[in-house]
Amino acid sequence: MDTHSHSATQTRPRTHTLQFPELDRRIECREDETVFAAARRAGLRIVGACGGRGSCGSCVVRVTEGQVHREGESLHRKWLRACCLQPRSNLTVEVAPRSLAPIVRADVSTGGDAVTLDCDPAVRELTLQVPPATLQDLASDTDRVRRVLGEQQPALQPTAIDWAAAAELPGLLRAHDWRVSARFALRPGGPRLIGFARPGAPLLGLAVDLGTTNAAAFLIDLGQGRQGRRLASLGLENPQVAWGADLISRINHAIGQPATAEALRQAAVNAINSLAHDLARAVGAEVGDIAEVLVCGNTAMQHLLAGWPVAQLGRAPFVAAMNEPLDVPARELGVQVARGANLHLAPCVGGFVGGDHVSALLATEPLWAHPGTSLVMDIGTNTEISLVHQGRIWSASCPSGPALEGGHIGSGMRAAEGAIERVAIGAEGRLHLQVIGGGRPVGLCGSGVLDALAAFVGAGWVDARGRITGSGPAIGMVDGIKAITLAEETQDIPAVRFTQHDVRAVQLAKSAIRSGVVQLAAEAELDETQIERIVIAGAFGAYLSVKSGVAIGLFPDLPRARFTQVGNAAGLGVQRMLASRERRERAARLATECRYVELSLRSNFQKTFLHHIGFGH
Amino acid sequence: MDTHSHSATQTRPRTHTLQFPELDRRIECREDETVFAAARRAGLRIVGACGGRGSCGSCVVRVTEGQVHREGESLHRKWLRACCLQPRSNLTVEVAPRSLAPIVRADVSTGGDAVTLDCDPAVRELTLQVPPATLQDLASDTDRVRRVLGEQQPALQPTAIDWAAAAELPGLLRAHDWRVSARFALRPGGPRLIGFARPGAPLLGLAVDLGTTNAAAFLIDLGQGRQGRRLASLGLENPQVAWGADLISRINHAIGQPATAEALRQAAVNAINSLAHDLARAVGAEVGDIAEVLVCGNTAMQHLLAGWPVAQLGRAPFVAAMNEPLDVPARELGVQVARGANLHLAPCVGGFVGGDHVSALLATEPLWAHPGTSLVMDIGTNTEISLVHQGRIWSASCPSGPALEGGHIGSGMRAAEGAIERVAIGAEGRLHLQVIGGGRPVGLCGSGVLDALAAFVGAGWVDARGRITGSGPAIGMVDGIKAITLAEETQDIPAVRFTQHDVRAVQLAKSAIRSGVVQLAAEAELDETQIERIVIAGAFGAYLSVKSGVAIGLFPDLPRARFTQVGNAAGLGVQRMLASRERRERAARLATECRYVELSLRSNFQKTFLHHIGFGH
Repeated sequence: MDTHSHSATQTRPRTHTLQFPELDRRIECREDETVFAAARRAGLRIVGACGGRGSCGSCVVRVTEGQVHREGESLHRKWLRACCLQPRSNLTVEVAPRSLAPIVRADVSTGGDAVTLDCDPAVRELTLQVPPATLQDLASDTDRVRRVLGEQQPALQPTAIDWAAAAELPGLLRAHDWRVSARFALRPGGPRLIGFARPGAPLLGLAVDLGTTNAAAFLIDLGQGRQGRRLASLGLENPQVAWGADLISRINHAIGQPATAEALRQAAVNAINSLAHDLARAVGAEVGDIAEVLVCGNTAMQHLLAGWPVAQLGRAPFVAAMNEPLDVPARELGVQVARGANLHLAPCVGGFVGGDHVSALLATEPLWAHPGTSLVMDIGTNTEISLVHQGRIWSASCPSGPALEGGHIGSGMRAAEGAIERVAIGAEGRLHLQVIGGGRPVGLCGSGVLDALAAFVGAGWVDARGRITGSGPAIGMVDGIKAITLAEETQDIPAVRFTQHDVRAVQLAKSAIRSGVVQLAAEAELDETQIERIVIAGAFGAYLSVKSGVAIGLFPDLPRARFTQVGNAAGLGVQRMLASRERRERAARLATECRYVELSLRSNFQKTFLHHIGFGH
Repeated sequence: MDTHSHSATQTRPRTHTLQFPELDRRIECREDETVFAAARRAGLRIVGACGGRGSCGSCVVRVTEGQVHREGESLHRKWLRACCLQPRSNLTVEVAPRSLAPIVRADVSTGGDAVTLDCDPAVRELTLQVPPATLQDLASDTDRVRRVLGEQQPALQPTAIDWAAAAELPGLLRAHDWRVSARFALRPGGPRLIGFARPGAPLLGLAVDLGTTNAAAFLIDLGQGRQGRRLASLGLENPQVAWGADLISRINHAIGQPATAEALRQAAVNAINSLAHDLARAVGAEVGDIAEVLVCGNTAMQHLLAGWPVAQLGRAPFVAAMNEPLDVPARELGVQVARGANLHLAPCVGGFVGGDHVSALLATEPLWAHPGTSLVMDIGTNTEISLVHQGRIWSASCPSGPALEGGHIGSGMRAAEGAIERVAIGAEGRLHLQVIGGGRPVGLCGSGVLDALAAFVGAGWVDARGRITGSGPAIGMVDGIKAITLAEETQDIPAVRFTQHDVRAVQLAKSAIRSGVVQLAAEAELDETQIERIVIAGAFGAYLSVKSGVAIGLFPDLPRARFTQVGNAAGLGVQRMLASRERRERAARLATECRYVELSLRSNFQKTFLHHIGFGH
C-alpha cells in the first residue's frame, strides 16, 4: 500500500517537442528518454548501428535551438550522438548527412531497370464479369465466380477458396458492377483462390532480402505479359539492430523472453510492412495489390520473423527448427499485403547459412556451375561462404560483424552521397580521398573502410599487429584514443576519423571471413590456391577493392582475374524465386545439396582465426 | 477545450460488488449498468433470451441484501428481471432456478454414450522417437521428424508443414527426451503436418452445432482405434442473443458497423472457446489436444463466425458470400484449440438454409432416403424444412423465433429440472402438469409451451383467433395483461404464467413453420397429405407432443405413424462429419442437391401465413 501512495505522488517526466527541419517532422520526447529513442519510436530514419547504446557514433545530430541535459558544456551547434542526448526544453535538431537513412529509389520513373526475370509466378490474376444476383438467380457469390471460371478458364477452377477471399467478394462485386479481379495461387494440389481485387488492379509481388543490418525489397509486376518487370526497390535499416548489431545478441535477447522475441518479430514485420507500403505508393499501387511475398534472410532472421524458438539455434550444436522452404499466410505474421497472400520463406542450409545465401547461390549459379573449384562469399554482418568443388558444395557462416558495411565504425556510413569510397596515401603521406557524389566527405562507407585500412597498413600508419603507430599530421589522440583524421570538422560536418577501435573491428571481421575460407578449403581437402573463381556478393562486395582486400588479408592472394564481384546476389535470387516457380524449386534443391560446416566446432578454428588477425605476410 | 475541462470534472459511476452465492462468484457492477449486463460481461451463465432488453423475463433474480435503483418499492426478496436492476450498494443476488443456464454434461463418467460414429477422420496422430541433435548430426528438427517418418510411416510424410508446428517442435523434443506426437491433416494434396504435442497426448475433435439461440458441442476421440468415441457434450446459450434473438436483428446490427460485426463474431468465437475449454477440462485433456473443429450453423451464423459481410444476405435476394464447405485455420478466427487445427465450416444450401440443416439431413438420411415423399424439419429459432420427393430436395427456412424453445416466453426455460414439459386440463378445468425431475414447477420448456397452448385451445381458454377468453381460477390479469397461471408464486420460486404475449409468439412461430411446409409442397406440386414421413429434428423436436403440434396447427393433420421424432440431428450430423471424411464429402454433395426456395419472395406466402395463424380447423 505504501508503494501505491508513493508512486501516486511521483511526477511523470515532462515531454518536449523536437523539430527536425530536414525531415519536416515534429515529434515528442520525454525528459527520461534520448533523442535517438524518440526518433526511432516515431519512425524517423536516423541511422543507429549500435541501437542507441552509445558504442558506434552513427546517429550524429546537433541541437540548433533549445537545452539538453548535459549542463556546463557548450553544446550549441556541436555534433553529438543522438543516443546520448535528453531534452530539457523543446529542441530543433539537425541530423548529420551521414546519419540520414537512405530514401526510396523507385525505378518506375525510368520504366523499370535492366533486370529481366524468368516469369512463371505462383500467383495469377483473371478479371471476371459475373452475372448479378437476382430473384431468379440466388447462387452464392463464390458460386457465381466458379460458374464463370468453368465457362472461361476451367484450368483456374480453384480446389480451395481462402476464407478471407470470401469476405472481400460481396462488397467488390456490388461496388464494381459485378466485375472483379480474382487472384489465384498455383499449388501442387491445384489452384487456390486467394483473394479478389478491384477490376484492373495490378498483380504485384514483393521480394525481400532481410539482412541482419539492412533490408532490401523489390516490387515486381507479376501480371500476365509483364515478364516480371521490376518496378521499384528500396533499402531500409533492419529495426532489429536496436537489439544488437549481431545475431547472437538478438538471439540472447529473445531466449526465454517471449515478449522480447515478439518485439523482435514485430520489428522485422514492421520493416517489411514499411517497405511494402513505400514501394506500393511509389508506383501508385496499394499494398493489397501485393499477392505474394518472398523473404530470404539468414536462418536466425527467418526464425525470428516466423516466431520460431531460437534457443536451440543459438547454442551448440546450432540446430534450426526448420530449414526447408515454407509457405506462411502473410496475414498470420502481420504482414500487411493482400489478405490471402502467401509469404514464402526461402530454404535454409543449416546453422546460420540461411535463405539469403541460398538466394545468392541461385543468382550466381552461372558463375560457379562449372567442373572446377569456386568460392561464393556473401559479405555482410554475417558472411556466408560456399566452396563448390566437383559438384559438391560446402557452406559455412562467419560472424563478421557490420564493420565492412560501414557499421560499428566511428565515422561509418552507407554508400551514399558524401561517403568516402576510395582512399590512397600519396608519396608524401597525403591522403587522396574519392567521395561519392564528388562533394565534401561526411563519412566512410564499407569500401572506404577497407581501402583506408589497406592504405594505412601500406604506409606503416598501422602496424602488423593492428596498432596505429605511424606519425603524420593526420594521426593523433581524440577523446583518449588513437585516431587517423581523414577529414577535419567543418562548420556543417563533423570530422571523419578512423580510430584504433575501428581497426580492431575490421581485423575481427576480416579474420573471421578468411578463416572460414581456409576451413572450407580444408573440409574439401584443398588448398586456397586451388580456388579457380571467387564470387564476391553483397552490396559491399560490389564496390570493394579486391586489391585492398588482398592487402589486409581478407582474401587469399590469388590472381585478380579469379575474382568476380557481383552486387546484391541474395536480392536478385529472391526476386527470381518470386517470379519463377522453377527457380523456387531449384533453390529448394540447392539448399539440400549444400553440406553445412559449423566452423566454431572445428578444433583448429581458433588457431586459424588468430593466425589471420594481423597484417603480416 | 471546454469539453475537456467539463468531462474532467464529471465523476465516474460508482462500482458495487455483486455476490452470487449459488454460483460461488463475486463480480463488479457499475451504477449505470444493469445486474444482467454485468453478469454477462463476467461470463455468468444467466439466461437472457432477449439480450437484456426487458422484453422476455428469462433473467429472473432477487436481491437478498443491498439496495437497487428502484426507490419507493419494496423490492427485497421479490423476483425481478436482472436486466431492469441497477445496484446502489453491494448486493447479494439469488438467481431463479429457471434462469440458471445449464452446466456441463460429460459422458466420460459413464464411459461414453451409445453413439458410435464411422471413424475415418481427417486428422491423424503418430508418436515418434527422433534421434537427438548432436555435433555429428546437425539436421533441423523438422528434418529429423521427416527422417523417422520416412523409415516408419512413409504414407504420412507431409507435403507441407504448418509454420506454427515448427514453432512447437524444438521445445517439445527437448522437454520430452526427443519423443513427440506429430499431428497430421489428410488433405487431397497429401498429408499436412499441422502440429506437435507431448507424447501420449490424446487426439481430439470438437463438433459444434452453433444454433441461433443455443450452441451445442461434442468432444470426440479421434485417436487410432478409438472409433470416434464421444467423450463429452455441453450446451451453452449463444452469447450473440445480446444482439437480438432473431437473425435479422443481428444482421441489422452488423451491417455497416464493422465494430459490431466484429463483436458478434467474437461472441460466437467466445462461445466455441468456452465450450472447448470446459469440455477438454471435463475429460482431463487440454484445448491443444483438439486437432480439428467442425462447425455447423445456419448461413448467417456461419457468415458472422467467419467475419463475412451479411448485408447481401439480409436483403432480397438474400445471397450468401459462400455456400460451399470451407477449411479455415482455427487460429485465424481466434478459436483456441491446437495451433495448427483446421476449422471446417459445414456446407450451406442458400438463404438461411445452412450447415446445420445439411448436418440434420446427413444424420437423418436413413429415414428419408426412400423413393416416396418425406419432410425433414429442424425446429429452432430459425426452422429449416426440406421436402424430399422422388430423389429431389426442396429446402426453405422459416423465421419461427425462439418461442418453441421456451425463449421469449415470460416463464420460458430450458428443458431442465423444474421445467413443465407436459400440460393437460382435466374435466373440471384443473391443470395437470408434468415437471422434469418431479419437483415443483419453475418454468415452461418448449414441449410444455406447445402442450399448454394445445390444452388451452382445447379447453376454450384460448379462442380460434388466439385470444385468452376463457374463465376459471387460473385466468386473470397480471400487470395489465391477460395471463393463465400454471403455478402460483411460492417463497422461493416466482409464478409460472402463460400470457397473451406468449400465445401470440407461439402463433407466429407455428404459422411460419406450417406455411413453409405448405409452400414447399406447392413447389413440388404436392399436397401436404401426400407426405409419407415427417422427420422432426431439433432438441425441442425430440420432446414435443405431436398430438399437441397437430392440435394447434403446427403440423398437418396426418396419421401419427408418419411422424418420427429425432433429437439434435444437426448435432449428430456435425459429429459424423468430424469423424468421417466420407460423411463430410456426402454432406458437400447433399448441400448441392438441395434446391433452395426463398419463401418470402413467393407471392402467396403472406396469404398462407395469415391462413394458418389461428386455431380454427
